[in-house]
Amino acid sequence: MPDANGLFDPDRVAVVGATDREGSIGRAIMENLEEFTGTVVPVNPSRETVLGYPVANEIADITDPIDLAVVVVPPDIAVEATRELGEQGVKNVVVITAGFGEAGSEGATREQELKSIAATYDMNLVGPNSLGVMSTPSRMNATFGPANARPGKLSFMSQSGAFITAVVDWANDQGIGFKDVVSLGNKAVLDESDFVDIWDDDPKTEVILGYLEGIGDGRGFIDVAREVTKETPIVLVKSGRTEAGAQAASSHTGTIAGSERAYEAGLDQAGVLRAENVQELFDYAQILAGQPVPDGNGVAVISNAGGPGVMTTDAIGDSNLEMASFDQETLEGLREALPEGANIYNPVDVIGDADNERFEAAIDLVLADSNVDAAIVVATPIAVLDYGKLATDIGTLQEKHDIPVATALMGGERIDAPARTLRESGIPNYFDPARAVTSLDALLTYRDITRIEYEQPQTFDVDRERVQEILETAAQRSNRIGVEAMGILDAYGIPTPEGAIVETPEAAQEAAESISGDVVMKIVSPDILHKSDIGGVKVGVSEDGVRDAFEDLITRAKNYQPDAQILGVQVQEMVDLETGTETILGMNRDPQFGPLLLFGLGGIFVEVLEDTTVRVAPVSQREATEMLGEIDSAPLLRGARGREPVDEPALIESIQRLSQLVTDFPAILELDINPLVASPEGVQAVDSRLTVDPDKL
Amino acid sequence: MPDANGLFDPDRVAVVGATDREGSIGRAIMENLEEFTGTVVPVNPSRETVLGYPVANEIADITDPIDLAVVVVPPDIAVEATRELGEQGVKNVVVITAGFGEAGSEGATREQELKSIAATYDMNLVGPNSLGVMSTPSRMNATFGPANARPGKLSFMSQSGAFITAVVDWANDQGIGFKDVVSLGNKAVLDESDFVDIWDDDPKTEVILGYLEGIGDGRGFIDVAREVTKETPIVLVKSGRTEAGAQAASSHTGTIAGSERAYEAGLDQAGVLRAENVQELFDYAQILAGQPVPDGNGVAVISNAGGPGVMTTDAIGDSNLEMASFDQETLEGLREALPEGANIYNPVDVIGDADNERFEAAIDLVLADSNVDAAIVVATPIAVLDYGKLATDIGTLQEKHDIPVATALMGGERIDAPARTLRESGIPNYFDPARAVTSLDALLTYRDITRIEYEQPQTFDVDRERVQEILETAAQRSNRIGVEAMGILDAYGIPTPEGAIVETPEAAQEAAESISGDVVMKIVSPDILHKSDIGGVKVGVSEDGVRDAFEDLITRAKNYQPDAQILGVQVQEMVDLETGTETILGMNRDPQFGPLLLFGLGGIFVEVLEDTTVRVAPVSQREATEMLGEIDSAPLLRGARGREPVDEPALIESIQRLSQLVTDFPAILELDINPLVASPEGVQAVDSRLTVDPDKL
Repeated sequence: MPDANGLFDPDRVAVVGATDREGSIGRAIMENLEEFTGTVVPVNPSRETVLGYPVANEIADITDPIDLAVVVVPPDIAVEATRELGEQGVKNVVVITAGFGEAGSEGATREQELKSIAATYDMNLVGPNSLGVMSTPSRMNATFGPANARPGKLSFMSQSGAFITAVVDWANDQGIGFKDVVSLGNKAVLDESDFVDIWDDDPKTEVILGYLEGIGDGRGFIDVAREVTKETPIVLVKSGRTEAGAQAASSHTGTIAGSERAYEAGLDQAGVLRAENVQELFDYAQILAGQPVPDGNGVAVISNAGGPGVMTTDAIGDSNLEMASFDQETLEGLREALPEGANIYNPVDVIGDADNERFEAAIDLVLADSNVDAAIVVATPIAVLDYGKLATDIGTLQEKHDIPVATALMGGERIDAPARTLRESGIPNYFDPARAVTSLDALLTYRDITRIEYEQPQTFDVDRERVQEILETAAQRSNRIGVEAMGILDAYGIPTPEGAIVETPEAAQEAAESISGDVVMKIVSPDILHKSDIGGVKVGVSEDGVRDAFEDLITRAKNYQPDAQILGVQVQEMVDLETGTETILGMNRDPQFGPLLLFGLGGIFVEVLEDTTVRVAPVSQREATEMLGEIDSAPLLRGARGREPVDEPALIESIQRLSQLVTDFPAILELDINPLVASPEGVQAVDSRLTVDPDKL
Repeated sequence: MPDANGLFDPDRVAVVGATDREGSIGRAIMENLEEFTGTVVPVNPSRETVLGYPVANEIADITDPIDLAVVVVPPDIAVEATRELGEQGVKNVVVITAGFGEAGSEGATREQELKSIAATYDMNLVGPNSLGVMSTPSRMNATFGPANARPGKLSFMSQSGAFITAVVDWANDQGIGFKDVVSLGNKAVLDESDFVDIWDDDPKTEVILGYLEGIGDGRGFIDVAREVTKETPIVLVKSGRTEAGAQAASSHTGTIAGSERAYEAGLDQAGVLRAENVQELFDYAQILAGQPVPDGNGVAVISNAGGPGVMTTDAIGDSNLEMASFDQETLEGLREALPEGANIYNPVDVIGDADNERFEAAIDLVLADSNVDAAIVVATPIAVLDYGKLATDIGTLQEKHDIPVATALMGGERIDAPARTLRESGIPNYFDPARAVTSLDALLTYRDITRIEYEQPQTFDVDRERVQEILETAAQRSNRIGVEAMGILDAYGIPTPEGAIVETPEAAQEAAESISGDVVMKIVSPDILHKSDIGGVKVGVSEDGVRDAFEDLITRAKNYQPDAQILGVQVQEMVDLETGTETILGMNRDPQFGPLLLFGLGGIFVEVLEDTTVRVAPVSQREATEMLGEIDSAPLLRGARGREPVDEPALIESIQRLSQLVTDFPAILELDINPLVASPEGVQAVDSRLTVDPDKL
């Protein structure tokens, strides 16, 4: 991607399709650009001026270099115009025009043309089907939508142009400002990953916000976002979360819905804060832009009213924050500063008759306590309390102690001015104390994100050629591979029970003899997927019984399906299911995020309780470890109810090895190890199935 | 309780302690009463007028009858004043004065005096330690707090006076009105149950709202609220939900915290809608006051913007609402009314260039569809769309079709006037469509509440005397009773395995012989609670081994604890744990709600996954049935993974029988049946423990 400075900080902007016809988009953009501090060059073949600006009749007529061109001419002409802009050396183009990928196959072809033009001329292209872009430092509003945004520290991208219109209008009213705003449109060229990258380098952007209905390249986004979120928080609303929503999103933008579980895991792995709705999006944004991250989790509540203090404490109980315990010095200070009947313990109650001095003293004492990492000031309107002065005091004290503060000065109109004062100090005010808490909680989550040390996935020494070979052989027979592919797991170092696939009773006997103890025998056929259902599995076969068992299995398979292709019988070491715990380790591919690993306990935990967790592969050791810990039934692996804990490192390593396998082989579309038996001695993959795409081998 | 008309609708109000001293509460109340349409009678021993009103120097001097007296004199005098008011025949008294139950033992004694005065004179007494009461039809503001509320249909009670101050101020700004407001104070006499009852009879109250930190008599509240919620919805914020919050509430009001699980179950059983925070409280209140309940769950979304339409659909996916499918006629109508490119399926997208006529036509068509039970209109600001007219149209159409509508006309200042128009039609408008959805969802929940048919708990034919006898005998030895109390369950018709408690090897032998098959033998001693730990349980004892087993159990018990009181050995039929599922049925007592039943699956489900459910007893058959269905592991009882379903009616009956037992015997403080084995053939209580309070026998 070429340098994107010209996109949000251009000196000269051309509007291709500018006009002064009332009600036209070309005019709306020209009007919106009136406050722009740079130069506007309207391009229109048949006019001499537009809204008083001198016009270029052709793109080729423009002599001075153009930093950004906005294209609003009809779709066919738009493609040509973009090419001409490329020839002129224009590097940043916003295509407002609709009628591309979102409008049938003709449109899709047109969009392909746009893409190849952008590639040819190395262009940053926004859209098509975009509302436009905005950047407040130069008062540039190159959209046909809303009034200019207020200046601020938030940069916002949206896959819905209409949503920008609503949000900017609302934000202006709320006093919330933006640095840049971009309507992503069809994302033919520049997409969410590019803007995250652009804003990462922008010192004026302190928080990146987005409304997305889909992410094109999930893994790519994870890799970019991880880097960015170390310095700049990203908060996203990803809609189409629910089945109904995904269906609506798909009919709206033609986005192919990836699974919500993949988005959930992927955005989490990317270090993105996910907001569920508009209110959360801006609540998080404001506190992230205005307040420092807390060092610890301890929060203090200072209020002049018991009830709202309790409500605040409840919300804290629901969050990752903890009620801080004050040290002796603080308690003594509060005892001195507050009247009898006040509560000097957290939540501090300065009582209903508190004036500004008392309130200020209490806040100052509490913020000075080293156990206090963040604070929430809650107040109800009382005659002796001047909200304006309280707001100023809180701002000063926040700056003095430099820990994050949120407020809930409660009331009606009377809070408008104090809330503005607080906002100017970067402190968000809410009527509802619960919102102050969830916002601080988001700050905490962001702090934890910045502390993550992203490690590279471990690379194990594996036998890649053997896997290639097994896959090729098996794929010649069927796309669905059963136990005959246990060798794949073995080649990647995932322990499997001792065993072999044999084709004669004699070989079966031999195999059984080389294994100590009784064996398990299973029919091996790509045509018989549910082996147990036809009696195709025999457990606990002793050496004497191996030959008979072999014959019986073959007979059963042939009776069940005379034309079934039978590869033989698997003779396998018995795995002690008594001391082991059955787990499931699986993988499928998501259209956006690629390989998605799934882990859980087997049996009822998967089938009835749906207690599983997922991650986008490849995973690091940290991520594999997290997977183990976050299922509800994790205590069963860790020695609950008197069991001996299983060998967790072996499980974690298996997850990582599977991650490497499915990353190395895109041909593996799905894979299930079920069960992967975990015991105190290690793990063993007892059974496995996979689906392969022969074209990708 | 005497007639409470005088409390909120008095003609004559006396203010005992009225004064014109600046900054005093007595003056604040007099000022707040200036708009009151009735007569105000200040009482002050040493003045002739207060704020121009003629004064009575003594309560005894008041000649005309007083409907309501507000008491603001210091605590000691307040008690005496209340007595004098009683003597004068005043039936409604609000004690503003603090320094009672919340203030040490002296205050508590004073509060007792107030209570006995109220009882003697049959008074409705609010407080003490109350902010006062308000009622808008007569513009009565008998509080020392906020400005008068706007008139409206909501009646609001709060255990926090300061919260009322904040809420009324905020509501005035939001255009939200109230019928009555009461600050409950210490609830010495009138409490939440009384106000729920009072407002049930009030035709002007359409929704009852409350902020509570505790409920004094939980079961009483359930019984009153159930009746009320059939006609009038009740929405409560109950704070102190979390451990931290409960602790804060307790230090604030001295409320003894009942368990959150009890509140959760109890408020649910009471038919109360529970709001988690202030925003939800008023979101729910407004839609309940303004819109009819929907017949079905189908909701339609009509928007002029894809993105916000998807967000709305997502929120619907998270709720109990369902996206309605339109019938053919609607689809054809929409196809005709909307341009190409519009989405005629739900969510309907009238597209960005929709004017008022198009929007109106689409809404009209959709609301006429018989599959549509509720609708949400979502709009982003576009030049061709007049929000004011849209608001009027929505109001008209809602009235025409009479189904509930909520709106998200998005934007800044420009939505103030249209939102007001909508509010006047009873339609709430939100910037965030997710709030429109959660509000409609609350309406749905309320509809379901009104449809509940509360049945009386079933009364089974039981042997009450036998239980009384067993409890009395056992309680003489210890408060904790083990297997020797299995007879209690038997007496209440909860099936127990065949068996007996025996004191000699011979008796053991005899008992075993009368049981078919092997037996289980357990030591019986009130001093040995964890029998298994000392080898005090023998499973699968054959007839031959019974005598030896008896001796061995006795020896082990004596070795373990030489002074243990040994009651004998229990010889019990073996219960087949292979075909059965272990469940747990238990009870403990909550300080507010009384007996709380707990049900869940045994083993890991209780210990690791904490998958249990609770109800306040007594429970009806419907409630017992709900308990069975709402645990996550319920499918395991219903035949998941190829099992045969257990005898659900038998389980449900056991829950009801236990409910009857613990209701009949308040002396039973705790009781656990663990396991209660459920199988396709029925249930069996295999082991049981209980704790008894001998003083209540």
